[in-house]
Amino acid sequence: MTLILSNDDVERLLTMPDCIEVLEDAYVELAAGRGISRTRSDCIAPTSYADDAMYGLKSMDGVLPKLGISAIRINSDIITNPMIGNTPRRVKVPAAPGGRYVGLVLLFSTDTGEPLAIFPDGVLQHIRVGATNGLGVKYMARDNAQTVGILGSGWQAETQLSAACSVRDIKEIRCFSPNKENRESFSERMSETLQVPVTPVDHAEDSIRGADIAMCATNANDPIFFADWIEKGMHLSSIKVAEIDVNAVRAADRVAIHTHDTEPIIVVAKGATNYEDNQTKSWEMAAALDFDSFPTLPDLITGAAKGRENDAEVTCFLNNLGLGYQFAAAGSVIYRRAKEEGAGNEVPTDWFTETVHP
Amino acid sequence: MTLILSNDDVERLLTMPDCIEVLEDAYVELAAGRGISRTRSDCIAPTSYADDAMYGLKSMDGVLPKLGISAIRINSDIITNPMIGNTPRRVKVPAAPGGRYVGLVLLFSTDTGEPLAIFPDGVLQHIRVGATNGLGVKYMARDNAQTVGILGSGWQAETQLSAACSVRDIKEIRCFSPNKENRESFSERMSETLQVPVTPVDHAEDSIRGADIAMCATNANDPIFFADWIEKGMHLSSIKVAEIDVNAVRAADRVAIHTHDTEPIIVVAKGATNYEDNQTKSWEMAAALDFDSFPTLPDLITGAAKGRENDAEVTCFLNNLGLGYQFAAAGSVIYRRAKEEGAGNEVPTDWFTETVHP
Repeated sequence: MTLILSNDDVERLLTMPDCIEVLEDAYVELAAGRGISRTRSDCIAPTSYADDAMYGLKSMDGVLPKLGISAIRINSDIITNPMIGNTPRRVKVPAAPGGRYVGLVLLFSTDTGEPLAIFPDGVLQHIRVGATNGLGVKYMARDNAQTVGILGSGWQAETQLSAACSVRDIKEIRCFSPNKENRESFSERMSETLQVPVTPVDHAEDSIRGADIAMCATNANDPIFFADWIEKGMHLSSIKVAEIDVNAVRAADRVAIHTHDTEPIIVVAKGATNYEDNQTKSWEMAAALDFDSFPTLPDLITGAAKGRENDAEVTCFLNNLGLGYQFAAAGSVIYRRAKEEGAGNEVPTDWFTETVHP
Repeated sequence: MTLILSNDDVERLLTMPDCIEVLEDAYVELAAGRGISRTRSDCIAPTSYADDAMYGLKSMDGVLPKLGISAIRINSDIITNPMIGNTPRRVKVPAAPGGRYVGLVLLFSTDTGEPLAIFPDGVLQHIRVGATNGLGVKYMARDNAQTVGILGSGWQAETQLSAACSVRDIKEIRCFSPNKENRESFSERMSETLQVPVTPVDHAEDSIRGADIAMCATNANDPIFFADWIEKGMHLSSIKVAEIDVNAVRAADRVAIHTHDTEPIIVVAKGATNYEDNQTKSWEMAAALDFDSFPTLPDLITGAAKGRENDAEVTCFLNNLGLGYQFAAAGSVIYRRAKEEGAGNEVPTDWFTETVHP
């Protein structure tokens, strides 16, 4: 039987510490060339949904033979680019029936090829981004780091904080985001979830000042963190490279990125006029900063590069690009737990396999 | 509801003429840049299935906005490379429960993003390869072509003949394949199916001699068709470029290929020692022949290039690489017919969509 799981299942079955642990080992496999990842591809086309909207079919995949698993993640998105404040934001529209998003993870067995499970990607997407930056904190932040300043109060911010708290003994968090109501409700909710006081603040600088760890967790296409804000011994963390100003990155003593994987393959259909990849700035920044010279997260984990030499250094981790491979690694935990629990809906594996030679 | 269809459904719902028709129009969209295709990717890794086996996760996708549809095709294969006769063949092993293969097509709506249907890829895979070469025949073979010589008696040969008979008034077919029993049972079956006499012959040359259309439909990694066999006015057709000897291709007056799409992205894990891409020879041949200089099938269809000038010319169509895009085009017909018929198993679309932002 093939398991159909829900986001609720994923949330229950995969804790942040578990995700960090399985990714940590998976990066050792990746560094050794035993695990592999296929770079993301985006097909962008017009949609009848709205004149200013685009359709995007995105996929990425990876294989982790050590755990006998492979994964492909697929997103089928309706995308708009509204101006939010003074900057254009890339906004996915939940246009599927019932006002829903469309993102799927399919897990397969490398032992038999069979489809093991299918589940929506949303919760895992948040956890794996958090876990990635969490590993950045683990290998680059001071051991005694105990305060976090976070910019952003959306769904990414939540797992960023959860990840930081999983790898350091965090005592205090300050949150800034432009919308007062959002940052207040977020802070209240996260104080409860993390059992760490989270304080909403009125200015970005108030969040960062005195923080041991400065986390950016926004969907901004322009820098929101600047060199002036850096303090001795601070660890900077971003979920997309455009968040941290190039000069701030340059001011860090050590910089690491998630991966040297190549740029996504982007294919754009005629008529998708409004297309502007939110990662374009990332590639420009990558070129400006010579990303190839930075060590990667796997380098930090295997010891091929040092994350921090002493408590005075300023360190910076840029989560420059996600990997389909992460869905295979984290997916293996979700699948194993789901089987143990008897979670999800079972459908006949024969529905997704065939006797006809493909 | 999302439809789960079977290979039987696909076989019933999509005829060869329908597939040829929808692809023909889809290539016009592709040539105009309104339809798009993402080149295939293969992740190759070790498997516990057997020491000499490999695991492959293959995917390709495409978007056809005119028909409001996108598709991704995924294969999760156990692959071996046994020697068959004197040549190594790439053989997929049906290793999933019940002795089954694993290949899936997922269709999405470009209007809403929603998953429309999921079905195994096997039958459509055969039909779309046939339809592609069928379009080659339509645009390059003589109008009065009536005899076909075919090399091969496997699953590809069947749809190749069906496609040729869909676009030309074929009166006679001669089939050669190395195994006498195979070619005889194939010929008997196809005579019945196509209502055209198919005669098994003992030598490849006997199949080709006097044929208006020479079709190669094998899984050979080495040439099986040679320049000596070419006759005036003949159309040569192959499902993979390695089948036709480079000198035979050079001897043709006009050559067209399926696509100028780039080589597949191939990522190989350490330990997948037995990996040899069966398309490697295709790339070498592509380099030797300067594929970039050949027109493509979309060029023939739009009239940007001529398939044939007169009845004396020798023409050659090389189906050099499949496109995920073909699954979107043909998939649109399958989905529409399935809805009309009420075919397949329905599962809640909510299983494959989400409220969580991905």
